Amino acid sequence: MQFFSFWRSLASFRVRVALNLKGVAADVVFVDLDADAHRTDAYRKINPQMALPALVTDDGTVLFQSLAIIDWLDETFPTPPLLPADALGRARVRGLALIVACEGHPLLTPRVRRYLDRELDLRDSQQNAWRRHWTVETLAALEGHLAGHKATGRFCHGDAPTLADICLVGHVTAAINQQISLSPWPTVKRIHETAMALPEFAKAHPSAQPDTPEAMRPK
Amino acid sequence: MQFFSFWRSLASFRVRVALNLKGVAADVVFVDLDADAHRTDAYRKINPQMALPALVTDDGTVLFQSLAIIDWLDETFPTPPLLPADALGRARVRGLALIVACEGHPLLTPRVRRYLDRELDLRDSQQNAWRRHWTVETLAALEGHLAGHKATGRFCHGDAPTLADICLVGHVTAAINQQISLSPWPTVKRIHETAMALPEFAKAHPSAQPDTPEAMRPK
Repeated sequence: MQFFSFWRSLASFRVRVALNLKGVAADVVFVDLDADAHRTDAYRKINPQMALPALVTDDGTVLFQSLAIIDWLDETFPTPPLLPADALGRARVRGLALIVACEGHPLLTPRVRRYLDRELDLRDSQQNAWRRHWTVETLAALEGHLAGHKATGRFCHGDAPTLADICLVGHVTAAINQQISLSPWPTVKRIHETAMALPEFAKAHPSAQPDTPEAMRPK
Repeated sequence: MQFFSFWRSLASFRVRVALNLKGVAADVVFVDLDADAHRTDAYRKINPQMALPALVTDDGTVLFQSLAIIDWLDETFPTPPLLPADALGRARVRGLALIVACEGHPLLTPRVRRYLDRELDLRDSQQNAWRRHWTVETLAALEGHLAGHKATGRFCHGDAPTLADICLVGHVTAAINQQISLSPWPTVKRIHETAMALPEFAKAHPSAQPDTPEAMRPK
């Protein structure tokens, strides 16, 4: 199994956590987004969308889109499960994950930042305000769904990590990178801390990858 | 079952198609996004994210995020299936759906348009260029994954509609609304036409809902 990843990609971060939780090893191929390595013909043949991550199974099938990859991993390596056993629980976990994946993250990706910078020629302060706005909207949406909900436990749904926590942690990482205080969203903050205390999450963090630049590692 | 919907919402359109394909009836509650009805306290209690659609089951559980709702419908009403029977097929269909849901649609939503307009004060030509850019990127990504792929059939995956077609049709609707010619993406164009020929898709179209304004109906 080959896993095409980049240290800073939050979608790659999600798949790394899932692989770690499942205890599944993959050969990691580093695709340097900063050097436009995802736009080469070689990578385009793997993923015509030229986006990360991608997972190539041993029979050569290419899987794309982080949430689809994680669903496949969960079906193929069922233990520990990343989705609840009941349909309503699965819907809640998927819904929480999609708040991040469909609404927060898409507005923060490198290609959107590039458009704001090059096509719209926004000032740095405007670009920062854009990022902060969508990051905060998503933190508030997560807190609104998590705080006081009877199904919220140590993690987003019960007491074991699911797909929802994987997505939440990536989004909180984006918030922390922007030095956004998490205090208005105490449930999100608590779950992020609980998850990051697990080695499966900590080892997957962008700052701890083989392709992480030295300057981006913890001092 | 209560379904909170708005005629123009492409995420509501997805759930309408799924309900039609499953033959499941729901009491539709119209939430007028143009009148900010999704920001009222009443709707906020249903969906703290203040986004459409939402589905409330007969036992009062609130489901949110269109793809999570469709997954739940597919699990609860298995016939006809909206996902393939095999795990790799499911991963492909989910991946295609997520290209639209996580990358195309999020950049075209009303709240993003509002930000471009009010916060960034972009000219109409810049707002149109923004919409066109992300719409076209997603059409190209879909065509890249669909054209010439052995699993592509009359629909995105085989010869029956799936979650991928539901998302594709919504995205093509956004392209048509912008008068973007589909000729560079013949596979996408063909699948859109095939799907829209089915009554389950046609009846779910934004132009054909009870809350569609008269001016937006076909002449």
